[in-house]
Amino acid sequence: MNAPLDSKLASFTELLARAREPFPASTKTHVAGAVHPQIAVPMREVKLTNGETVSLYDTSGPYTDPKVAIDIRSGLPQVRRGWIDARADTAFYEGRALQAVDDGTKDEASARVAELRREAAALQRQPRKAIPGANVTQMHYAKKGIITPEMEYVAIRENGRREWMAEYLADAGREARLAGNPMGASIPKIVTPEFVRDEVARGRAIIPANINHPEVEPMAIGRNFLVKINANIGNSAVTSSIEEEVEKLVWAIRWGADNVMDLSTGRNIHTTRDWIVRNSPVPIGTVPIYQALEKVGGVAEDLTWEIYRDTLIEQAEQGVDYFTIHAGLRLPFIHLTAARRTGIVSRGGSIMAKWCIAHHKESFLYTHFEDICDIMKQYDVSFSLGDGLRPGCAADANDEAQFAELRTLGELTKLAWKHDVQTMIEGPGHVPMHMIQANMEEQLKHCHEAPFYTLGPLTIDVAPGYDHIASAIGAAMIGWFGTAMLCYVTPKEHLGLPDREDVKAGIIAYKIAAHAADVAKGHPGARARDDALSKARFEFRWHDQFNLSLDPETARDFHDETLPKDSSKEAHFCSMCGPKFCSMKITQEVREFAAAQGVSEQAALEQGMAQKADEFRRAGGEIYIPIASAT
Amino acid sequence: MNAPLDSKLASFTELLARAREPFPASTKTHVAGAVHPQIAVPMREVKLTNGETVSLYDTSGPYTDPKVAIDIRSGLPQVRRGWIDARADTAFYEGRALQAVDDGTKDEASARVAELRREAAALQRQPRKAIPGANVTQMHYAKKGIITPEMEYVAIRENGRREWMAEYLADAGREARLAGNPMGASIPKIVTPEFVRDEVARGRAIIPANINHPEVEPMAIGRNFLVKINANIGNSAVTSSIEEEVEKLVWAIRWGADNVMDLSTGRNIHTTRDWIVRNSPVPIGTVPIYQALEKVGGVAEDLTWEIYRDTLIEQAEQGVDYFTIHAGLRLPFIHLTAARRTGIVSRGGSIMAKWCIAHHKESFLYTHFEDICDIMKQYDVSFSLGDGLRPGCAADANDEAQFAELRTLGELTKLAWKHDVQTMIEGPGHVPMHMIQANMEEQLKHCHEAPFYTLGPLTIDVAPGYDHIASAIGAAMIGWFGTAMLCYVTPKEHLGLPDREDVKAGIIAYKIAAHAADVAKGHPGARARDDALSKARFEFRWHDQFNLSLDPETARDFHDETLPKDSSKEAHFCSMCGPKFCSMKITQEVREFAAAQGVSEQAALEQGMAQKADEFRRAGGEIYIPIASAT
Repeated sequence: MNAPLDSKLASFTELLARAREPFPASTKTHVAGAVHPQIAVPMREVKLTNGETVSLYDTSGPYTDPKVAIDIRSGLPQVRRGWIDARADTAFYEGRALQAVDDGTKDEASARVAELRREAAALQRQPRKAIPGANVTQMHYAKKGIITPEMEYVAIRENGRREWMAEYLADAGREARLAGNPMGASIPKIVTPEFVRDEVARGRAIIPANINHPEVEPMAIGRNFLVKINANIGNSAVTSSIEEEVEKLVWAIRWGADNVMDLSTGRNIHTTRDWIVRNSPVPIGTVPIYQALEKVGGVAEDLTWEIYRDTLIEQAEQGVDYFTIHAGLRLPFIHLTAARRTGIVSRGGSIMAKWCIAHHKESFLYTHFEDICDIMKQYDVSFSLGDGLRPGCAADANDEAQFAELRTLGELTKLAWKHDVQTMIEGPGHVPMHMIQANMEEQLKHCHEAPFYTLGPLTIDVAPGYDHIASAIGAAMIGWFGTAMLCYVTPKEHLGLPDREDVKAGIIAYKIAAHAADVAKGHPGARARDDALSKARFEFRWHDQFNLSLDPETARDFHDETLPKDSSKEAHFCSMCGPKFCSMKITQEVREFAAAQGVSEQAALEQGMAQKADEFRRAGGEIYIPIASAT
Repeated sequence: MNAPLDSKLASFTELLARAREPFPASTKTHVAGAVHPQIAVPMREVKLTNGETVSLYDTSGPYTDPKVAIDIRSGLPQVRRGWIDARADTAFYEGRALQAVDDGTKDEASARVAELRREAAALQRQPRKAIPGANVTQMHYAKKGIITPEMEYVAIRENGRREWMAEYLADAGREARLAGNPMGASIPKIVTPEFVRDEVARGRAIIPANINHPEVEPMAIGRNFLVKINANIGNSAVTSSIEEEVEKLVWAIRWGADNVMDLSTGRNIHTTRDWIVRNSPVPIGTVPIYQALEKVGGVAEDLTWEIYRDTLIEQAEQGVDYFTIHAGLRLPFIHLTAARRTGIVSRGGSIMAKWCIAHHKESFLYTHFEDICDIMKQYDVSFSLGDGLRPGCAADANDEAQFAELRTLGELTKLAWKHDVQTMIEGPGHVPMHMIQANMEEQLKHCHEAPFYTLGPLTIDVAPGYDHIASAIGAAMIGWFGTAMLCYVTPKEHLGLPDREDVKAGIIAYKIAAHAADVAKGHPGARARDDALSKARFEFRWHDQFNLSLDPETARDFHDETLPKDSSKEAHFCSMCGPKFCSMKITQEVREFAAAQGVSEQAALEQGMAQKADEFRRAGGEIYIPIASAT
């Protein structure tokens, strides 16, 4: 952190180059639309050594496409530009004038800010908004029966290429035990563009896609779609830099972050966001109250609706796709936290609680909620209704403070939908396993099936340093129960700011949780990747096993630690058991023996064959690879 | 691995010394018995900075007690020696003559074996066994109504010191939401020695404690006790050494392994076990078929009952506490695996399957099951009935092969209990989340509540390199549902042999899973540690937060990475949000403000206090620590 600027940039460039490397045996391909032939939905194709191809959901954007030249100082290609233009319901306009306070100082002549702005010059875009009387949200289009390119994009993306999955999908059709338990979700066999439209129209899914973020590759968050994950990045008052945050973004989406929240709280907030949004192919969320608070020098009591409103517009113009707004934390709920072990642990929540108590007034986020909706619908910014009263420890889980706020979020959802503003609901936090399902049930009951977006939950409090694991358990469970997006927790939670290795560790833990949820729900095709990997494992196709895994590099490195030789990648045994004890090898031999006799194992067994047993015994004497060749 | 012997030993000594360091702010204390005043149950007391003391379950044995001198070349103090003597139902005897083949060679003059034996000379003990007609199992005593010292030891250990928990236990009594959901378990408020006896008598719990392992600190495995974890160690044909394995044992119990299995498959098996058992305060399990197979040169078809029987006696005399025996894998079940994606993945299972097919005979483990019981009861070796047909991938979960074997294990449990042999049942493996509960239900239904001991299960197959996480999710869930012991999975699963860092990563992941299960089940006091840590977190007692966590070192290191200064350990903010945004700090200020006014927050709110709001605003201006002091 204290290295000179030059070496920082050099190392940043190197890191970025590394984050851009295509995954092994992988190429980026695109699938065109039918309703909208111009759309090109990216997928990662993994070429297996047996000639098969597996195609995977790809969150990494153009970064892993070597054919795309990217200069992060000028931003990504604008995938959605033409789609937005074609709708002809928006207009470019002057936009709000930039102020020094947006980047943390009242000194309009600040040299730091001038330098920041110069560096970000090529990232500036003229904003657009809805023309008078128009509503440009995906929900608005959906309710009018319009299938937007964004919706078809999502449909294609959710399905993936079904061709390669056929073998595995057939299994699930044949055996009930493999069909999954959707826990009340209505997951279709094939996601059609019309299905996406319908889900968005009824509020059961959102497609976060600000019209000022044309770089975004559309994705959906909803109970009937694949479970998504969010990664938080952002500089803080204490540490970290802009370059680090952009690199973390690219790094995060490489490993599978479907969404990224910029939680910056230090100086340079506005410019950091320019860098992040312009370079992000995934939706970006923020918590606008953080920046608003910076603008009033960190004094919560000095916040006003006007400053907050101005901040919403500032960020909507930049292209933020969803805002966390803690509008459900009402004055009458605050006293409910008095007996808690850890009080209010949400930053946004505690800021608003402080404001409410200091002024003894109802929260301006609540009283101005429809004014906020009016802004959101002009840019298609989605609500992420914040849970400012989420529990901060196991002992505070599912208490009245938490659920009173949740019910209020349900009321606000109805209001948001009146304005056709896309809405999801944030959830906890810290919840022991046996109390997780009640969270999902309460949310479904009170929030009208608006997507649930939870932080973990952490199932225990005693694992600082490993909270990505303590929370992945809760996240997998609540994902199965119906949560649409899981906000990751890194190993540094409660202790410090995550570095890039922590970001990766958090993301992988959450990809595991989300995938475990998809498999349990029986999302068509979710298990196909597992099946393909297990088949590769059984057939000793080591490279395929690595390349189909969530982190091919780590899988290969771990294998190399014990058996470094290239030849061992072809070996029909592995380092755990050595050549003589490999159970998979033995199983295969058993099968081959049965096949060689021209009979199935079952038939062979039924015939009772002493002679064949003899042959097997003799053949068995020669099947071992000598130990020497293994080490 | 290829370092010269001297440097290996030097580094081994260093590593061992490090593994013996007491945890920060911790001292080893002992609690005496009431029925058996001579017993001294170890606990780790953590002294907090606020003067409170928290006492924790301690698996680390005498290693973390600086007052105990330990020479691993002569083994640990014999805690149970006097108890076993006092029962007067065993006798020392000559024992089976050691053979070179026990350590992997037919050359009785082998210089390697002679050297091995010399090095382990001080670890040799004369074995004892039951006197003719006696049965020395804990189950046998329990059924006769005898409360053994082992049983009282377990009772004290399970309860912990309840004094410090009182504040937290009161919570659970007050609010139903904090009481847990035992999912059918019958967890008492206080574990009495009589309760332990009863659980052991009815087979619902086991206390693995071979009479030839007097070094063991007794512990229980059962659905109504704390969820336990097992760590696997052991050298293999391909790599690793004896010293490494002993150090891994000490390392494993330091981090919380309740049991350790020695899965050695290479040479030196017998002597490795001498080192491990003599130096282990936790029960040691093995899979005897591994060594038996070594004795027949790795040719499964050449296995005989006589060789296997001889191996059981060899290991029982050494003090192994439980044997994994795949006696439920019967000839008629093997064909059920033919259509599986990954066939038979259990090593022991595939060895026996190969034997059965080659001879076209029923498994000798099944046909000789009562002969095996006769051996077990003379030493009090417990059964861990192996699941040789467990699924090796999600697609094979819960299939007929798996459940046919499980039902057979239930039959065998009845047979074992006829001989008063303590028994637990092994379970999978690879099981998607929605299929986990069925595993527990089938096990409860068919295995008469004998403790379940599962490997994970892994909830997905695509996470090689992170299977400790993919499986901790399944382990936590099945632990909540009623599994008594969770066999850990390390990050190296499927890829290579775990090194010490992998062992630690696996153990921590499984301590998280086990603890999450205990909290969900509502085990009295389980949540008290979480509450104490959360209280420390809320009160900015950083050192207490670290010291109460599963891995104090890592928690502190992570904190130091962002805020290295000692002063920041006293700081009333943390690195995540910086001094201005700390929500806990804000919450505390809100409370302090209310308290200073002599009114509760609620009352204050109800009074509607414009003047007080003013005071708060003024006070609020001064509460921030300047940023400069934080960095």
